[in-house]
Amino acid sequence: MAVNLPTPDILHPVAGALMATGRAGIKKSATRDDLCLIALAPGSSVAGVFTQSSFKAAPVLVAQSHLQQWQGQDLRALLINSGNANAATGELGLTDARETCAWVAQALDIEATQVLPFSTGVIGERLPLDRMAPTVRTLSQSLQSDGWLSCARAIMTTDTGPKAVSRQIELDGRTLTFTGMAKGAGMIRPDMATMLAYIVTDASVAPDVLTQMLQHATARSFNRITIDGDTSTNDAFVIAATGAAGAPRIDGPQSPGYDEVCTALTDIARTLAQYIVRDGEGATRFIEVCVEGGRNETECLQVAYTIAESPLVKTAAFAGDPNWGRFCMAIGRSGIADLDTTGVSLWLDDVCVARGGLLADSYREEDGARVMGQPEFQVRVDLGRGSAVERVWTSDFSYEYVRINAEYRT
Amino acid sequence: MAVNLPTPDILHPVAGALMATGRAGIKKSATRDDLCLIALAPGSSVAGVFTQSSFKAAPVLVAQSHLQQWQGQDLRALLINSGNANAATGELGLTDARETCAWVAQALDIEATQVLPFSTGVIGERLPLDRMAPTVRTLSQSLQSDGWLSCARAIMTTDTGPKAVSRQIELDGRTLTFTGMAKGAGMIRPDMATMLAYIVTDASVAPDVLTQMLQHATARSFNRITIDGDTSTNDAFVIAATGAAGAPRIDGPQSPGYDEVCTALTDIARTLAQYIVRDGEGATRFIEVCVEGGRNETECLQVAYTIAESPLVKTAAFAGDPNWGRFCMAIGRSGIADLDTTGVSLWLDDVCVARGGLLADSYREEDGARVMGQPEFQVRVDLGRGSAVERVWTSDFSYEYVRINAEYRT
Repeated sequence: MAVNLPTPDILHPVAGALMATGRAGIKKSATRDDLCLIALAPGSSVAGVFTQSSFKAAPVLVAQSHLQQWQGQDLRALLINSGNANAATGELGLTDARETCAWVAQALDIEATQVLPFSTGVIGERLPLDRMAPTVRTLSQSLQSDGWLSCARAIMTTDTGPKAVSRQIELDGRTLTFTGMAKGAGMIRPDMATMLAYIVTDASVAPDVLTQMLQHATARSFNRITIDGDTSTNDAFVIAATGAAGAPRIDGPQSPGYDEVCTALTDIARTLAQYIVRDGEGATRFIEVCVEGGRNETECLQVAYTIAESPLVKTAAFAGDPNWGRFCMAIGRSGIADLDTTGVSLWLDDVCVARGGLLADSYREEDGARVMGQPEFQVRVDLGRGSAVERVWTSDFSYEYVRINAEYRT
Repeated sequence: MAVNLPTPDILHPVAGALMATGRAGIKKSATRDDLCLIALAPGSSVAGVFTQSSFKAAPVLVAQSHLQQWQGQDLRALLINSGNANAATGELGLTDARETCAWVAQALDIEATQVLPFSTGVIGERLPLDRMAPTVRTLSQSLQSDGWLSCARAIMTTDTGPKAVSRQIELDGRTLTFTGMAKGAGMIRPDMATMLAYIVTDASVAPDVLTQMLQHATARSFNRITIDGDTSTNDAFVIAATGAAGAPRIDGPQSPGYDEVCTALTDIARTLAQYIVRDGEGATRFIEVCVEGGRNETECLQVAYTIAESPLVKTAAFAGDPNWGRFCMAIGRSGIADLDTTGVSLWLDDVCVARGGLLADSYREEDGARVMGQPEFQVRVDLGRGSAVERVWTSDFSYEYVRINAEYRT
């Protein structure tokens, strides 16, 4: 039921990155690849952001520690499995995650700490190391440059389709390539520990600068989507820059190419983040919530998330029902203490629904219904008290959402 | 689909309170009473708490102003309508609400400001004053002491049944009576601006003391329930004390009877609050979430509400699926920055599911499934870092929830 989720177009190989996927049978019933290995050229910079959950999964803790140990420089491999999150597995889970890194290290002749592990899937069960070990060996012997689509498929859990995108930019006579992939089904899958996203580029970027770019991109992409407000134990977003295109290294915001590379990364991250929402569980609508006229970013986000996560608004969206009362309720409870509601206006796409806290004179219910009947639309709120603007993306709440989440194990 | 919502038992008349209900046709299609008038004896104390929404409905603003003007003393009437919330109606809505108070005042020969108006129903439409005026006149001429069940029915919107309860206590040789009613369907009804609750007693309580008791009761009842986290524009909880039983006035916490009256009010408020959850839209389960071992009340509530409002947990509850991963996810994202998850334990009723952040050795899935298959159960979390305890009550997310909220206007 994904909403306008495109089949990946051409996915360019990225110089300095080799990959392979295979079927380890991590979920015994698995009928598709569930393990993905990406090897990075020596000297690659890597930056990552991870879930804020207190229940961080073992691979998250190990990846964070490895990244820190190498200070983002010279990380050499990403090992990603689906089917098992290796979360809520305690000390044994940490040992297992480190063990998988050691296999990769041995096969590629690098340090175990140069490998970053990622897992997504069922919580509370240990990884089937016996089934994974031989597959990792096979993958490390069959690495190739052109395998992004297989990788995007191997990391899927309940996603209805692979999510990947590729871009190239010209910089000072050289072509830089960016290819990214993500998996989601929302932050919401029953047993699943869910969102993973990766972008690899052959640009050359210093680790601390890559971290800045990652933060810039995250704040405009993965940190602006919500399906139901639930956050998983395994969320991770990682950017790797191999430097293999041979372009000059970007050492700081003043370096030539900084803006272009940062923009390309942000665009890809936003596209991948929106793909995750488009493929949200049971999604029948893709909704942009834009809140403008706030005093600052924080209050715009507060209102935007309250609207985007309100079950009332989300069921109205499912029904295509332009129900001003529900938006008004959500804005009202969003927690801005001194909000003057007589300054608040609301649009559905270009249809003005309310102005000054009241239904607009020009508004006709059929106009609102026409907008909300579309698979994609924008809800725009003007708070009328400042100049800050924020956007978040979300999906609706459907019968299918309840079915998927209620029937998963029954 | 209400979960163990009892039909009201005997509802005792309360000395000093007279009431009447009628059908004004506020919703043109209405087939039941939609207007309720309660007259209070001279000298009655009244205390109220109201929605925190920025979009407060007109009657909320008027009732707050009237209460303040009389400092909670000598309020004489409550006028409650269902079918129309008089919310998001601007200045005209305020004028309308004041107009309805003026009718009651004229009929009962009191001041308009001694009347508190309440509305629940569709947002964004003006009250049909022409249809309401004659009904108010009729009601004021037909007041009687025994009509609580009719009142509880007249304030319903999408509630599947009336919610009311009555208690009597003996105090120093006198019988004090407490009768309360509430309407809900959750905080969640599509067009509805929803929760209203009233308790009337013939105890004699000074207004400031009644306000203290109201706060005590609210913190243990209406402020501890959630159906989907959405808060309406019209929520109100009001306690009136007529003093007509002739018992000595309670002037402070040291007065004889303070504890007994406060406890009775709190018990009734908790019962009514739980009735609202039991009758939550589409509810098939009634769930108590108890969080203990927190450092303070705030963090216990943070965890309790995150569990109670997680769509993931709520769909698991609908399915009767004892999914430890979902509770673990909710606890993890509840925002306690320094939570040591190795101290966290979880029970479903008396079945220990997890201990020290890991699945308990003794745990068997069928035991968890047995508990979550019941219409009522408790989820208990021990954070293992303090001695604070908090409880909230919630319901599940079902197909019916989506249907009710999606199909309301289609």
